[in-house]
Amino acid sequence: MKRALVSVSDKSGVVDFCKSLVKNGFEIISTGGTYKILVENGIKAIEIDEVTKFPECFEGRVKTLNPFVHGGILHRRDKQSHLDQAKELGVEAIDLVCVNLYPFKATIEKTDDFEEIIENIDIGGPAMVRSAAKNFDGVMIVTDADDYVKVIDAIENEKNTLEFRRNLMIKAYEHTAAYDSMIANYMNTRFNGGFGEKQFIVGNKVMDTRYGENPHQKGALYEFDKHYSDNFKTLKGEASFNNLNDLSGAVKIASAFGAENAVCITKHGNPCGFAIKDTLLEAYEEALKCDPVSAFGGVVAVNGVVNKELALKMNEIFLEVIIAGRITQEAQEVFASKKRIKLFEMGSEKLLLANDAKDFKHIDGGFVYQDADKVNNDEVKNAKLMTTRDATSQEKKDMEIAYKVASLTKSNCVVYVKNSAMVAVGMGMTSRVDASECALKKAKAMGLDVTGAALASEAFFPFRDSIDAAAAAGVKSVIEPGGSIRDEEIIEAANEFGMSLYFSEVRHFLH
Amino acid sequence: MKRALVSVSDKSGVVDFCKSLVKNGFEIISTGGTYKILVENGIKAIEIDEVTKFPECFEGRVKTLNPFVHGGILHRRDKQSHLDQAKELGVEAIDLVCVNLYPFKATIEKTDDFEEIIENIDIGGPAMVRSAAKNFDGVMIVTDADDYVKVIDAIENEKNTLEFRRNLMIKAYEHTAAYDSMIANYMNTRFNGGFGEKQFIVGNKVMDTRYGENPHQKGALYEFDKHYSDNFKTLKGEASFNNLNDLSGAVKIASAFGAENAVCITKHGNPCGFAIKDTLLEAYEEALKCDPVSAFGGVVAVNGVVNKELALKMNEIFLEVIIAGRITQEAQEVFASKKRIKLFEMGSEKLLLANDAKDFKHIDGGFVYQDADKVNNDEVKNAKLMTTRDATSQEKKDMEIAYKVASLTKSNCVVYVKNSAMVAVGMGMTSRVDASECALKKAKAMGLDVTGAALASEAFFPFRDSIDAAAAAGVKSVIEPGGSIRDEEIIEAANEFGMSLYFSEVRHFLH
Repeated sequence: MKRALVSVSDKSGVVDFCKSLVKNGFEIISTGGTYKILVENGIKAIEIDEVTKFPECFEGRVKTLNPFVHGGILHRRDKQSHLDQAKELGVEAIDLVCVNLYPFKATIEKTDDFEEIIENIDIGGPAMVRSAAKNFDGVMIVTDADDYVKVIDAIENEKNTLEFRRNLMIKAYEHTAAYDSMIANYMNTRFNGGFGEKQFIVGNKVMDTRYGENPHQKGALYEFDKHYSDNFKTLKGEASFNNLNDLSGAVKIASAFGAENAVCITKHGNPCGFAIKDTLLEAYEEALKCDPVSAFGGVVAVNGVVNKELALKMNEIFLEVIIAGRITQEAQEVFASKKRIKLFEMGSEKLLLANDAKDFKHIDGGFVYQDADKVNNDEVKNAKLMTTRDATSQEKKDMEIAYKVASLTKSNCVVYVKNSAMVAVGMGMTSRVDASECALKKAKAMGLDVTGAALASEAFFPFRDSIDAAAAAGVKSVIEPGGSIRDEEIIEAANEFGMSLYFSEVRHFLH
Repeated sequence: MKRALVSVSDKSGVVDFCKSLVKNGFEIISTGGTYKILVENGIKAIEIDEVTKFPECFEGRVKTLNPFVHGGILHRRDKQSHLDQAKELGVEAIDLVCVNLYPFKATIEKTDDFEEIIENIDIGGPAMVRSAAKNFDGVMIVTDADDYVKVIDAIENEKNTLEFRRNLMIKAYEHTAAYDSMIANYMNTRFNGGFGEKQFIVGNKVMDTRYGENPHQKGALYEFDKHYSDNFKTLKGEASFNNLNDLSGAVKIASAFGAENAVCITKHGNPCGFAIKDTLLEAYEEALKCDPVSAFGGVVAVNGVVNKELALKMNEIFLEVIIAGRITQEAQEVFASKKRIKLFEMGSEKLLLANDAKDFKHIDGGFVYQDADKVNNDEVKNAKLMTTRDATSQEKKDMEIAYKVASLTKSNCVVYVKNSAMVAVGMGMTSRVDASECALKKAKAMGLDVTGAALASEAFFPFRDSIDAAAAAGVKSVIEPGGSIRDEEIIEAANEFGMSLYFSEVRHFLH
């Protein structure tokens, strides 16, 4: 007769699982709440004290931390000396351990009460999980209710191989590692402002990507909670590693203006088109005008529903990716014949962001970690007018759009917006004036009229050169953080050209 | 009389620590190897079996997993019911737990033997660490030999506050989280190619940065092993969050050519100057010519020793950061008067890379994870000549440099190299031809002669336009991955202009 120790916090499916175990010749050992539920459901189970020969004590703080339990789990089945010692000590083998842990995560989500939180740090559970995982050679360790069916199948159909148990072992250590990472991160957030001595970035795999940033690299997508599992839906094609990176940038920009009908076109994570209009169709058409050349093979994020009309318009050029709150069935049919286009949904009617509180970047040998950057809604509203001329109300709206888009565009960048549509953008350059000039040159080549546009820079202009260039192109209003030692010169230039210049006093570098 | 349970794998300092504990009225309980060393050093200790009333068994697999140990640790000192139960069960309080774990890391570094590796997964240790941490209200948990002095000081000088013990608690959960993360990652590397169901990115804090990417964001640097602690030295100033990011990019480029005298100037993580020359001084002078405007306030990585002569040259313009293998005392004196310049060393005579095997990027709601990209040395050597004309030997050298630099420059990028110095670079743009044209325009503005230069692109040219532009500027040799549906057109263009064109067949996108 084999023995299974079952002690679970999440009780879903445990009754059926134990019934199947009994049917397959297992004797069940159980604890407190789990024992109760099993007996209520007509399953014969042994209470843990019978095994431990010691009472459960200190209000449940010590139940299974006991040599009869851990000896039963940990002794090697392939060593006669272990088997002999087990017999001598009266330690009986435990062949399957089914444990999941006190709900630390649910607890910190629902309360700040530190005593309750501490009480929900499981001690006995992880010890059993880790014991059983270490001895996976002879013991099955089951930590996930979703695995019950698979485990029963393995037992019944001779699939309980070493490899099967090894996979359970890996999952078990992932489980305890994630649990303690969560505890450590929680404590560091609570007591050390989120920047403790160790930082644990833990991801759950959503999918392997076909490859990484390049074909010779393997790659995968990991999520923190369930942001992708719950909200990201693949309708057509397969998201590549680079798509996922681009999508993240595009969705951030398209959803940065609440429920507005915004469309963002990106290439290599940077916007090459953006507009907010009364309808998404208009927004797309305007966004496309900014740089139709770069839009070729680009990623389009639509903050809303792609309907047939919009789909027909989009289908006129080659786009690699469309992501929207929703893409109607009719719209999907429009794209059906195009082999290479990929369609994704993120959210429901509107695009949805996870809005992570923290941000990090891999650098050689480690990573830099920081609070995520956000543009507060009052930054533009409270920006200081530095010039004689004030901006018109449309210019102010354009400035706000330009400013937010610039905060989500790779530095050094400048963004020109006119009538709520981006008309020029320069980004990712080592010199700000280069970004300005490239942007304007491109706009000219595209036949776009920058006259009357608003210009935003995500960091201060170091010299007046970008203002000179903007003025020559007809730009009327400028917003930037300010803070250069040459600010006076820049203000003077703006006044000279009769422009309005605002300082937000907040920098938004993005690298 | 207080009791301390001491059971350590790393025995450094433990004898002195226990002597001090005894002096402060502690009774020591100990296990196997630790017990032996204590007794040998004249410290009176109680063997663990006396406490557990159970023999150590299964070759040490079960020693401390016992209610007398865990009850002694876990019962609440502030609850009379717990104290009564402890008395009734004969459970004596344990007030300090000093445990560090089986050396899993050292084991996987020295062997592939799976049985030995499994045996080095500590079970009893983490259970005690976690128990004691949970009950930090009444128990001190000491997991780091570096804390012994601090702990004794706290005991002797009334600094054993709740906050002190809480910090030990946080460190304890960091310790167990890091331990299981290491186990899970090891297993996933061994059995799942490094892309398991969960991914644990664990960093140890090197320092808080003054702020993050922007002043309103908090930031910090975390390292995986000891790459920064061991190799990164601050000589002057303080590395900012953005500096660290830029440094990583600059050091990668400057050290990409082995022991060669290479100098890389970067701005916002992208190169705006690069050269390999007979001396570092020459290399710096040539690197600076590429874009002295962007070099203003830039980051310079020097693959070697900055001496006085080089320092004097560098000091002629404003640089924000210099990082080198070493910066001599005399060179440091040259910079002493400049307030804003920052000086760092990374390595010794030459720059040193950690060369992480994996790479990751934060995206909204998770991260993408991949094998790190590397350019193999044979990629350029084995690149296929697609044109009639072959490159000269200097052109081949220039192509190799351009190709490697391009692989470390943000996409889309093009790099032009002549006589081992970068003469033009376009990067981070949404369109490749824009990058090409911006680069050439800039070179012209800088008065640089591109005639005879080699051009590399990190991904294929989609159209012949970049080749046309390069030819017009006098470029003679081109290397790119190839793979466009218009490759034939591009080869034809190169032949038309009498250029040599190579296909490497390996793409190196970097975003």
